[in-house]
Amino acid sequence: MRTRIAVLASGNGSNLRALFRFFGEGAPLADAEIAFVASNRSESGALALARERRVATAVITGGEDDAPVLAALLDQHRIDLIVLAGYLRLVPAAVARAFRGRIMNIHPALLPAFGGPGMYGERVHHAVIAAGVRVSGATVHFVDEIYDHGACIAQWPVPVYAGDTAATLALRVLRVEHLLLPRAVHAVATGSVQLDETGRVTGSFPSPDPAAAYALLAREDADIARDITRLLSR
Amino acid sequence: MRTRIAVLASGNGSNLRALFRFFGEGAPLADAEIAFVASNRSESGALALARERRVATAVITGGEDDAPVLAALLDQHRIDLIVLAGYLRLVPAAVARAFRGRIMNIHPALLPAFGGPGMYGERVHHAVIAAGVRVSGATVHFVDEIYDHGACIAQWPVPVYAGDTAATLALRVLRVEHLLLPRAVHAVATGSVQLDETGRVTGSFPSPDPAAAYALLAREDADIARDITRLLSR
Repeated sequence: MRTRIAVLASGNGSNLRALFRFFGEGAPLADAEIAFVASNRSESGALALARERRVATAVITGGEDDAPVLAALLDQHRIDLIVLAGYLRLVPAAVARAFRGRIMNIHPALLPAFGGPGMYGERVHHAVIAAGVRVSGATVHFVDEIYDHGACIAQWPVPVYAGDTAATLALRVLRVEHLLLPRAVHAVATGSVQLDETGRVTGSFPSPDPAAAYALLAREDADIARDITRLLSR
Repeated sequence: MRTRIAVLASGNGSNLRALFRFFGEGAPLADAEIAFVASNRSESGALALARERRVATAVITGGEDDAPVLAALLDQHRIDLIVLAGYLRLVPAAVARAFRGRIMNIHPALLPAFGGPGMYGERVHHAVIAAGVRVSGATVHFVDEIYDHGACIAQWPVPVYAGDTAATLALRVLRVEHLLLPRAVHAVATGSVQLDETGRVTGSFPSPDPAAAYALLAREDADIARDITRLLSR
């Protein structure tokens, strides 16, 4: 049985594209598929991308009152795993509880630093630059009912350079997000990483090694270059 | 004129040894020297090491009431720059103010995460392991009157592996500390990194790149291996 994945996104969908690239396109991985995409923004690039791929979509309001509709949609599409890929709202508490250990998020910094309410999108990178730190990164974590709070699945570091702006840092972190998220989703989808009863992550995620992350970052990747170009031209 | 450095340390002095190795031993760097070492622990390995090298030493109480004695000692030894290398006490506020931009500390995590009062030594690594994060590291920062608060000079990341304990993580971070601290001290001592009037760090520190940090970590280094052996046998 394939793990059926729902992706929730608010933005232009570059992380969704990275997921499609990893799980589909010609040689789909046998063990997981993206079965449903929802957004709180009807004009989200993520929805357009899902429609192109003939994946079911929905527009949701993005509030706590989404709970019954979202639960019904997830049921209808027989969703096993929810991935928040640049989803800028809090998932309804009832949904987070029902999907405990089967709902995950990517955050564009090294949690527990630079997370929490109001810390999303460009705001994260502005805060990192303002704090003057020299290392940031990306974090994939299980979702609970508190913003950016759940147990950590994977993190990869990214250097912050002296001349960086929030925009240049965002692009560097985004490249790591595109590499990290699909691999972390695959690890959870296939059960090689799990959330245990005590709230600890068990199992292992392949290569949290920064050197490996950097080797991947250095690799030419036309699709990632295209994503970055699109993001810059928003 | 050589920059005269004072080192304050509470522990076994492995970071002091890394500083001696960088700034002295046969081919001393012309622009800086370690001129004075103080500790709040009379049995500190750092003091023994300094005596071996015939560097002036003192035992201080490690409290706010150190201020007049410490100020007099720093004056007597014509100190330009203070380095806290595993110093587990807060420097007296008057000294921190007088040396603004000329006093720096190393912390065994990626600040602003896992810092603040009570977060020192092994406690830091216990907290990192308990939090389940996958990236930690070392931070060198200017010191102000608040624990682990001053502007960041340099950070290098270190992976946290699934099987890590506080002890195994401490050793991995310590290797980065030994590489990072002397280079950051040299950058401040020579004026290539400075704290400006607004509290921002200006200038550039060479290579905060995680890939470079990892390349250095992978290198065989007999002295670092010896430090680690000593630390394990404490």
